[in-house]
Amino acid sequence: MTAQEIITRKRNGKKLSEREIDFLIGGYTAGKIPDYQIAAFLMTVYFRSMDAEETATFTRLMRDSGETLQLDKFALPKADKHSTGGVGDKVSLILAPLVAVCDVMNPMISGRSLAHTGGTLDKLESIPGFNTQIPMQRFLQLLEKYNFALIGQTPEICPADKKMYALRDATATVSSIPLICGSILSKKLAEDLDVLILDVKAGNGAIFEKKEDARKLAEALVRTAANFKLKTVAILTQMDQPLGKTIGNWFETEEAIHMLQGEAPEDLETVTIELSAYMVWLAGRTNSLAKARELVSDKLASGEALARFREIVVAQGGEAQYIDHPERYATPAYKAEIFAVKNGYIAEAHARKLGQISMLLGAGRQKKEDGVDTLAGIKLDKKVGEFVEKGDRLCTLYANMHAIPENLRNEAGRAFKISEEKVAALPVILDVIE
Amino acid sequence: MTAQEIITRKRNGKKLSEREIDFLIGGYTAGKIPDYQIAAFLMTVYFRSMDAEETATFTRLMRDSGETLQLDKFALPKADKHSTGGVGDKVSLILAPLVAVCDVMNPMISGRSLAHTGGTLDKLESIPGFNTQIPMQRFLQLLEKYNFALIGQTPEICPADKKMYALRDATATVSSIPLICGSILSKKLAEDLDVLILDVKAGNGAIFEKKEDARKLAEALVRTAANFKLKTVAILTQMDQPLGKTIGNWFETEEAIHMLQGEAPEDLETVTIELSAYMVWLAGRTNSLAKARELVSDKLASGEALARFREIVVAQGGEAQYIDHPERYATPAYKAEIFAVKNGYIAEAHARKLGQISMLLGAGRQKKEDGVDTLAGIKLDKKVGEFVEKGDRLCTLYANMHAIPENLRNEAGRAFKISEEKVAALPVILDVIE
Repeated sequence: MTAQEIITRKRNGKKLSEREIDFLIGGYTAGKIPDYQIAAFLMTVYFRSMDAEETATFTRLMRDSGETLQLDKFALPKADKHSTGGVGDKVSLILAPLVAVCDVMNPMISGRSLAHTGGTLDKLESIPGFNTQIPMQRFLQLLEKYNFALIGQTPEICPADKKMYALRDATATVSSIPLICGSILSKKLAEDLDVLILDVKAGNGAIFEKKEDARKLAEALVRTAANFKLKTVAILTQMDQPLGKTIGNWFETEEAIHMLQGEAPEDLETVTIELSAYMVWLAGRTNSLAKARELVSDKLASGEALARFREIVVAQGGEAQYIDHPERYATPAYKAEIFAVKNGYIAEAHARKLGQISMLLGAGRQKKEDGVDTLAGIKLDKKVGEFVEKGDRLCTLYANMHAIPENLRNEAGRAFKISEEKVAALPVILDVIE
Repeated sequence: MTAQEIITRKRNGKKLSEREIDFLIGGYTAGKIPDYQIAAFLMTVYFRSMDAEETATFTRLMRDSGETLQLDKFALPKADKHSTGGVGDKVSLILAPLVAVCDVMNPMISGRSLAHTGGTLDKLESIPGFNTQIPMQRFLQLLEKYNFALIGQTPEICPADKKMYALRDATATVSSIPLICGSILSKKLAEDLDVLILDVKAGNGAIFEKKEDARKLAEALVRTAANFKLKTVAILTQMDQPLGKTIGNWFETEEAIHMLQGEAPEDLETVTIELSAYMVWLAGRTNSLAKARELVSDKLASGEALARFREIVVAQGGEAQYIDHPERYATPAYKAEIFAVKNGYIAEAHARKLGQISMLLGAGRQKKEDGVDTLAGIKLDKKVGEFVEKGDRLCTLYANMHAIPENLRNEAGRAFKISEEKVAALPVILDVIE
């Protein structure tokens, strides 16, 4: 058996055996199979796909390329949420402490921003001192004490995915359903969960722009997860415009803090409550979804979730003053306001375009080696369906490391479309796949 | 522009611009684009293909990745032959001196064996002392004096193809028509030719097993070559069984010497005469193909081609005694005879299987780093259509570096099929595409 023979078989549309998939993943993890053969394999899978059995085997072997958490000793049910990635998505920062105070353990392992999408780790690290690189022993202590902790992927967990993820980005093989299933689920399976809630984004800011494609991904994720002892629900959510009213690392953290303090844009609140409620319900904390919605809303309103978030920030080395007084945070050096050029209804606030502008302002990474500017980003004044008059501000661009180039202002203007006809607000929750 | 964006566009079925193709080939040659991105690109092209214009641009830019020969100063017409690769194909060793004595200059640059197919360089190097790595200045001197020379690819010619060829083998992207066009034609265009004859093999020992696929390749090659000042004809030839009666480096060289001495299996003679005649005719040395066939047959019969081959062997450092007395060559240490298990007609002498066995006996390379055993190989007694009685010898396996494993004997037996019904000999020339 050689890597080349396996690639050839998949290229010819054949189904791969467990031994063949193991040969590739094991060889790649051990450094025996080079990047270029895996790149060819990934592109072959992009075109030929994998069936349900192959995808489940691929996912399991990706998980088994490294260590897995052992959380049996904790009595609480374990649940996590994963989002397929979007623009302005700061849900994790609110949801994690929220389910934690509902007595659900959330061993959340997050990723970094890439291209136009944000990453939870970069947002957390905008809090001065916040440390997401924590030894496993300490992570388990935090879980025991706070029911959650917010860390980055460790070298021990899914090393095959770690190598493959970077390669997929460089080789245009991200948007392959079996590869996404393997990547997402292997990491979540390694967390030793009972419940997994998937936020599958659909729209121009998501991996899949078309709702039908996103639904296929959601179905494949739920079907693959069913091979493992893991209750999984996928919720299809809107990603044609950014979620909430901010994009950028500190701005999103600040917006999350505001929501924990009781104030949030409607779409962000809806998505966060819904995802949290599913977690709490499926973890067995309430006997209906409706009761779970009530419970998480209460815990949010009572300030318990905010208090728990503050605790984890302190426990992970972050400066709590910025949670108590986000207004004390530094002010970006540069800003540029974008105004409506005519009266009408906002018909589009293009998520991907705004995400790309935010990245180019310094908030995100073009390449995975790049650093991020915590103060760069965009604050939105208007979202789809709102009426504006000519001269009203649509959004403000911010940057701190460099001035704001003219072309980004122009592109920000073009990211908005204004219609003379009335436009409805975008639905937030598109569907639920169980 | 990034490599990733270009891969994405091709992946989505878009046509690539000259600038995009140049970005990839230039970046790869300069070492700025890594193997894994080119591997993904190659697999994308395997699935999405390239149209005629893209293929021509790709071919031209591959040629321009390095230097090209400048043969204007020689008055003779320049012609070369290229085979897409097969088993037992020793045509080049006979054809090159043969067209040379017909006053056609043949600046032949050859390759090495890989997988089940042989390579002209390895065959030539089975002649003790024969040096195929010759400086450009010396190559031009040999061309001037002998009208031909037999060398390997230099680092200066088509460096992009050199890198990409090895990568294609490792990534299962060999059998892509635009990639084959680019690889073959870029190197031949770099030889500054007037005439190119393509021997496109069809059958189980060839890149394409089906005649229709081989024909598509032949048509694409001829169509692509038409973009350059190059008279090109493609001849579709049989590769369901080995060409001639030997496989292996010295065995094939010896069979070529025997043909230059006047004795050859019919299929080898037919293919060699036909390819040579097309070269001589299209180079303007005769005013009809029929006359060209006569001319090359005469030059073969007169011994002039043999004498010219002997001259180049001496000029390139080889020991002429083995041309004069091939029987003096060393004898392989191990042999295994394969016999017919019943009476009947040979219905199959499977080219790819026999090529693979020969490779495993030591005649070929599994990986490009491997060395070759000049004395390993197979001598065939019977070919398709011949009648055999039970116990007649079908072929003999030879090896020199290691004993012959039992499984290779069994596989050699299975490479032959014997039918009770009469079977016709296989046609040799399948078609001509101009």
